[in-house]
Amino acid sequence: MIRPKALLFDVQGTATDFFTTVTSEALRIDRGRNDGVDWADFVNRWRAAYFTAVAATPTPAGTWTSVHSIYRRTLDALLRDAGVEYTDADAEDLTLAWQRLVPWPDAVPGLRRLSTKYTLATLSNADVSAVVNLSKRGGLPWDAIFTAEMVGAFKPDPATYSTAARYLGLPHGEIMMVASHKYDIRAAAALGFQTAFVARPLEFGPTAQADTEYDDAFDLNASDFIDLADQLGT
Amino acid sequence: MIRPKALLFDVQGTATDFFTTVTSEALRIDRGRNDGVDWADFVNRWRAAYFTAVAATPTPAGTWTSVHSIYRRTLDALLRDAGVEYTDADAEDLTLAWQRLVPWPDAVPGLRRLSTKYTLATLSNADVSAVVNLSKRGGLPWDAIFTAEMVGAFKPDPATYSTAARYLGLPHGEIMMVASHKYDIRAAAALGFQTAFVARPLEFGPTAQADTEYDDAFDLNASDFIDLADQLGT
Repeated sequence: MIRPKALLFDVQGTATDFFTTVTSEALRIDRGRNDGVDWADFVNRWRAAYFTAVAATPTPAGTWTSVHSIYRRTLDALLRDAGVEYTDADAEDLTLAWQRLVPWPDAVPGLRRLSTKYTLATLSNADVSAVVNLSKRGGLPWDAIFTAEMVGAFKPDPATYSTAARYLGLPHGEIMMVASHKYDIRAAAALGFQTAFVARPLEFGPTAQADTEYDDAFDLNASDFIDLADQLGT
Repeated sequence: MIRPKALLFDVQGTATDFFTTVTSEALRIDRGRNDGVDWADFVNRWRAAYFTAVAATPTPAGTWTSVHSIYRRTLDALLRDAGVEYTDADAEDLTLAWQRLVPWPDAVPGLRRLSTKYTLATLSNADVSAVVNLSKRGGLPWDAIFTAEMVGAFKPDPATYSTAARYLGLPHGEIMMVASHKYDIRAAAALGFQTAFVARPLEFGPTAQADTEYDDAFDLNASDFIDLADQLGT
């Protein structure tokens, strides 16, 4: 393996723990008013509805649909379907939880080590403001924040990966895409990027199943960002 | 004055000392081969030629001219006009000096203080890769890097400022544009941004004249980033 010069990181799920953050925010905002709701399950259904909505969102040139608006729209539909009592302010506050996602415990120490040798950037489908806000709050030491919003297309659209490479001024082969989602790194691999799979067994909480199986098709498989830093010699 | 939530910084001249960096790089690369050349004067003429070229560069949708290529093209013309002996590798090395610009001594300590209360981002005409590389090298603690390349237009095009505001998810009035160049902050002011002028008397070296005159038309006038941090209560 040729050492990459830069690493691109997925954010929601790979660098941050959305399940714990959004579930605890939902419980805080609900204040027990809807105690029949399984908020952990609700958050996973919300995340799934977001994924479906992003994949179905057209992105013609010159237009953009914010991920905040997609989260909000899917939330409103889920709350309505579940018959949950919620004010508009509560729904907005809960949607903003995606801008407050907490890093996995290994993320900041792992990234600090990786930062000594590599340029570190995000490549996220989340809005720029969401990645900026959660990174500042959580102390994630990115050298740059790139997101789908800057490209006008969502991952796994090839334009997202190739635009990030152009911004970095590097050929695809000198950049490693890091994610806990295989569709994401497979799309990058198809464009000549190096790939690292990071297992996040708790991505959907302690009872749901995440795909954590290593695959030799990827350049690296790591158990967390510390392991990634070890394998990349930092 | 209402306190801003985020600050946008010009980079070349405002946060970094291009005159000292590029002049010393020119002397290093020349190794005394062209000792009749006044490299300090050469660098200021190069910077002026770059400014003229950027203003004359068309930016139709879907195309982009890298600032690196503009610096390189203007350098080649100046070297040819001056009859300077230079290899292609030397010219490329010298052009890359713009990716190694050294921060002003007050920049990192000032930004560290400002970072405790405000979101800090660049808004530069330089290429993304240039700002990423010089910021990592110099330890400039930005929360985000925004540049003209992401917008497809150069400052003072209104799209550069309004796109940065969209990325931050903030109204113009909650963002302060910081620059040592009045055309830059005047363009931002016209769009409703707050403005801070930072005097950089040595921007063009010890013998050339920079515009350092304070103006009450700006929300703040500061002598450096430490003064800016003082005035913004950090």
